[in-house]
Amino acid sequence: MKKVGIVMGSDSDLSIMSDAMKTLDSFGIEYDVTIISAHRMPDVFFDYAKNAEEKYDVLIAGAGGAAHLPGMAAAITPIPVIGVPIYTKALGGVDSLYSIVQMPSGIPVATVAINGAKNAAILAAKIMALGNPELMEKIKTFKDGLAEGVMKKKEKIEAVGYEQYLKEM
Amino acid sequence: MKKVGIVMGSDSDLSIMSDAMKTLDSFGIEYDVTIISAHRMPDVFFDYAKNAEEKYDVLIAGAGGAAHLPGMAAAITPIPVIGVPIYTKALGGVDSLYSIVQMPSGIPVATVAINGAKNAAILAAKIMALGNPELMEKIKTFKDGLAEGVMKKKEKIEAVGYEQYLKEM
Amino acid sequence: MKKVGIVMGSDSDLSIMSDAMKTLDSFGIEYDVTIISAHRMPDVFFDYAKNAEEKYDVLIAGAGGAAHLPGMAAAITPIPVIGVPIYTKALGGVDSLYSIVQMPSGIPVATVAINGAKNAAILAAKIMALGNPELMEKIKTFKDGLAEGVMKKKEKIEAVGYEQYLKEM
Amino acid sequence: MKKVGIVMGSDSDLSIMSDAMKTLDSFGIEYDVTIISAHRMPDVFFDYAKNAEEKYDVLIAGAGGAAHLPGMAAAITPIPVIGVPIYTKALGGVDSLYSIVQMPSGIPVATVAINGAKNAAILAAKIMALGNPELMEKIKTFKDGLAEGVMKKKEKIEAVGYEQYLKEM
Amino acid sequence: MKKVGIVMGSDSDLSIMSDAMKTLDSFGIEYDVTIISAHRMPDVFFDYAKNAEEKYDVLIAGAGGAAHLPGMAAAITPIPVIGVPIYTKALGGVDSLYSIVQMPSGIPVATVAINGAKNAAILAAKIMALGNPELMEKIKTFKDGLAEGVMKKKEKIEAVGYEQYLKEM
Amino acid sequence: MKKVGIVMGSDSDLSIMSDAMKTLDSFGIEYDVTIISAHRMPDVFFDYAKNAEEKYDVLIAGAGGAAHLPGMAAAITPIPVIGVPIYTKALGGVDSLYSIVQMPSGIPVATVAINGAKNAAILAAKIMALGNPELMEKIKTFKDGLAEGVMKKKEKIEAVGYEQYLKEM
Amino acid sequence: MKKVGIVMGSDSDLSIMSDAMKTLDSFGIEYDVTIISAHRMPDVFFDYAKNAEEKYDVLIAGAGGAAHLPGMAAAITPIPVIGVPIYTKALGGVDSLYSIVQMPSGIPVATVAINGAKNAAILAAKIMALGNPELMEKIKTFKDGLAEGVMKKKEKIEAVGYEQYLKEM
Amino acid sequence: MKKVGIVMGSDSDLSIMSDAMKTLDSFGIEYDVTIISAHRMPDVFFDYAKNAEEKYDVLIAGAGGAAHLPGMAAAITPIPVIGVPIYTKALGGVDSLYSIVQMPSGIPVATVAINGAKNAAILAAKIMALGNPELMEKIKTFKDGLAEGVMKKKEKIEAVGYEQYLKEM
Repeated sequence: MKKVGIVMGSDSDLSIMSDAMKTLDSFGIEYDVTIISAHRMPDVFFDYAKNAEEKYDVLIAGAGGAAHLPGMAAAITPIPVIGVPIYTKALGGVDSLYSIVQMPSGIPVATVAINGAKNAAILAAKIMALGNPELMEKIKTFKDGLAEGVMKKKEKIEAVGYEQYLKEM
Repeated sequence: MKKVGIVMGSDSDLSIMSDAMKTLDSFGIEYDVTIISAHRMPDVFFDYAKNAEEKYDVLIAGAGGAAHLPGMAAAITPIPVIGVPIYTKALGGVDSLYSIVQMPSGIPVATVAINGAKNAAILAAKIMALGNPELMEKIKTFKDGLAEGVMKKKEKIEAVGYEQYLKEM
Repeated sequence: MKKVGIVMGSDSDLSIMSDAMKTLDSFGIEYDVTIISAHRMPDVFFDYAKNAEEKYDVLIAGAGGAAHLPGMAAAITPIPVIGVPIYTKALGGVDSLYSIVQMPSGIPVATVAINGAKNAAILAAKIMALGNPELMEKIKTFKDGLAEGVMKKKEKIEAVGYEQYLKEM
Repeated sequence: MKKVGIVMGSDSDLSIMSDAMKTLDSFGIEYDVTIISAHRMPDVFFDYAKNAEEKYDVLIAGAGGAAHLPGMAAAITPIPVIGVPIYTKALGGVDSLYSIVQMPSGIPVATVAINGAKNAAILAAKIMALGNPELMEKIKTFKDGLAEGVMKKKEKIEAVGYEQYLKEM
Repeated sequence: MKKVGIVMGSDSDLSIMSDAMKTLDSFGIEYDVTIISAHRMPDVFFDYAKNAEEKYDVLIAGAGGAAHLPGMAAAITPIPVIGVPIYTKALGGVDSLYSIVQMPSGIPVATVAINGAKNAAILAAKIMALGNPELMEKIKTFKDGLAEGVMKKKEKIEAVGYEQYLKEM
Repeated sequence: MKKVGIVMGSDSDLSIMSDAMKTLDSFGIEYDVTIISAHRMPDVFFDYAKNAEEKYDVLIAGAGGAAHLPGMAAAITPIPVIGVPIYTKALGGVDSLYSIVQMPSGIPVATVAINGAKNAAILAAKIMALGNPELMEKIKTFKDGLAEGVMKKKEKIEAVGYEQYLKEM
Repeated sequence: MKKVGIVMGSDSDLSIMSDAMKTLDSFGIEYDVTIISAHRMPDVFFDYAKNAEEKYDVLIAGAGGAAHLPGMAAAITPIPVIGVPIYTKALGGVDSLYSIVQMPSGIPVATVAINGAKNAAILAAKIMALGNPELMEKIKTFKDGLAEGVMKKKEKIEAVGYEQYLKEM
Repeated sequence: MKKVGIVMGSDSDLSIMSDAMKTLDSFGIEYDVTIISAHRMPDVFFDYAKNAEEKYDVLIAGAGGAAHLPGMAAAITPIPVIGVPIYTKALGGVDSLYSIVQMPSGIPVATVAINGAKNAAILAAKIMALGNPELMEKIKTFKDGLAEGVMKKKEKIEAVGYEQYLKEM
């Protein structure tokens, strides 16, 4: 199993994207994080994308506005690229979403929700788990954990009532 | 390598979704196609999603409007789910897109473009190629083919001029 | 008369949804409140929806983003489901609204305004009042109260003028 | 059990709204259909809404553009009002949807999908079935029918393959 | 010359709408301000709209969300109705705008910008100035004042430079 | 009473705008129609707008896309300007609507619905009727006619049933 | 004066983009037209953009959907890039527009209207006319021609009336 | 080489527009800044636009809402006009964007991102560099600087790790 490559165009996206790193940590998946702007350093970006296949199983690319990073990466590397549309003040991230999801035929980007860096990491884990039963078990444990987390809330609100629950939030 | 499971909620989506089948054929990837409505037959849908892991490496789910099929499948199965938002007359498929891509934390759907069934299949192939060098070669060949296809158009328009090119379209 | 079942996918929706509880209280309608994620605990959700008919006359389901809870509940239970689209930061709740209101033919969700939990409760009361003259009287009294509330404002602003009225707000 | 009142602002909505009538027929629910414009004949509209309670259990109101009919009806009558936003050429029915669903606190309209007249009728049936076990049975039968309809398609596509299925559509 | 009638559905709109009152004051135009909800007190609203012609030359109606007040007023009174769409948190006032501007054929509402209460008053003044040369002079003076206001800014920025200008803002 | 000035930026808008002319004819209101592009002939446009006050009581200006004609006219003339946003293929007329309705403080345009040329004319008539009892009578008669038109449809559908009504449409 | 480089990602855009070629012809500006997909042949695209400066004064780049071609070209070449967002069926070209216009700081694309290939050519001509008085004269003549074209329509409609004008369209 | 003319309709846009001035300073390009409202002082605006050609190579025009300033300037002057859509609270600047970018055939405005004043200046520099090798060198140096800026961030995050990087932000 190779690493996950995590790339973003600007360090202003780092806080959002760090959800992906923490999630991969929890799955025990290794990753590299870097900041490369497809627009500001296209040569470096090209090299990064060209070499991605050697080092990575999956790329996670976050970008906002006219967000070309995920799509251009998918144009160059044959490995799966997961795109994270970053929220923008003016358009709420609809510009980022459309720039990432509406890719032309032949060049898919696996797009997740606006600011959905955590889900990008889970999707990467699901992809890498295909030939990896140990990781697949971790994903199932993670899913069970999700259910348990809500189950505790369910039990609490049914036990203490919504008013008490609200007070303790 | 398991199959790809292709599921849609209505046979009105079949014409669009058939792009996925043709593309998987071209990669030599096996698949099952079925029609299951998460809304109209939730029990059958649950069984389908619960058992998907045994038979499939990846699910491709197409749905339109309040499109819950891909997200609910991703809620049940641990394998990657690729969502295809289907075009709708009233809202152009924005309703389908939002219903599929804006998944909550924990449950990703790998979303492609509106009506992007072909890209869903390519993404499935990229995912399945991770531990499969032979399939990875096919993907690279496919990418080369994309380039060659446009290269021929490039050469033609530079040779004959745009007016002649337009006439021959 | 049975209870109203109030369900939401996350306790982050509880503050908004509590408007529904307070409103049902004012009508003297009993209800259960719980937190069940259709995505994170689909089995529990299925059981909840399957058994809803026994305990509830109406379900009120609040959800945000790719909001599948109301629609999936309506897919399973034959009783009326009222959906409350929750406001989202990125898209203002348009994603929630489209995911809830654009249901396919056969599976309606009675959708109210974004964050309209209070109206969901009033709608539930109106539905439950059909065979219940006593409750219908309460609804009429409630409507009269709405009118009186604005009538007092009308009288005040006409009496003191808008500048004084503004100062006292 | 009273009738359902079906009202629309213009006969240009009649073709869409006729889905509601056919669906109510299939449930054996009686209804009156009329054309009343809240804008063009407000007095007649007021009388209609004021007297709705006597004759009807539920109102179904369809309107397009700046669609005030459902909301104004809900402002006058205490019975539940179901709103059907009608598709518009310029805005796809988003104008109709917002005008119907975004009602202020106190005055809910149970909104269904754009052009969702059939779902409006099913919702009306679900509401009227609350104190009516016979009608509730019909709704369950209807739900079973929905499932069976898709099940036949499922079986067919799995038997004949998607290409044959597409040819026969 | 009669007065202007200013009506809004909720005192939450009063702060925005007070721009209209101040502007009418500056033109020396008399007005009445009131708070009447078309949804919460439809009878009072009907009477208000029916009697508007006697007392008012123009109505200014502000409303937000599913904003029916301006359109319903225009449905009842023959005098011109100016609609002010009020900003909403979820949809930015697009819901208010569509509910007011997209009126059906036969029932126009003169719609101004979201939160454009000041422009509503200026429009009312322009309308009332048609047969009133004195008021027309005031409007021209107002227009001159607008120009002078910006002219002073123009002269200042050209004299002191943009950096100094910014510091003094 | 002066005339109404009707101006549009392109003869591609003439078919839509002709609804305004027909409606003014029905009220017996005189008008001039012309085609002037604020963008293509700004000098001619300036002269037109500067001189509008002499000849016209009201201007009706139709424009599509980045629709500057109504707003620029309102910037120059002190008389009321009614703006008609023309439908556009790409954006459905939302571009036209925003360009016309979102005017800055000080310069109102009385905006009607997308393609609402007929309503523009009715609004012009309502404005011109303020000091003109005879025209006011015509407007009331027109309103009565609207009601009668729908009343006939109401009576017919109640008499013959919706199926027969649909057949005869 | 160098040529204009016209590039598009797909020959499906050629019909729209040919407006640019015809317009440049009318100004006597030379150009090259080619079809290069940034996504399908990124290497060829990089070479094209890297070498653009030698041959071209301005690039005109048309693209639809997740339209990365104009922005990526602007990332590589120092010469001005004009972007033409191409209409798309699902989203009307809003996806194309956002992908082109919302470029990050440092990398501007001069964006024109959806399908605005003609305007892209005029803008290129305006840019190239800066140091070229002869071309500047042609642009002024072109502007005069625009005015004359509308002036003829103005004179005709004022002479024959709108009804006759409509008949002859 | 002439100056750049920078014009905005209101001093509320000055803070955003000052990015353009600073950027032109960094390129050593001279400019004039002024505040002229096309709506409030149309005569002054006309003179400004008519005389722009003498003094300026390029105009940069910023405006918000129904933003007519850039388009009207482009209608009058033959030199290139760059439009900066200013963010608006209600609509996020979509109104500004549509009002600026959707210009009719014949009158292009080179539109940049919402609040993209810095990019407007860079675009102006690129345009003015066409016949000016010295300025072209500065643009290349600027582009190199963009790359270096991100390269430093790339090196840092790869050296210290994302957690340390985040702490130091």
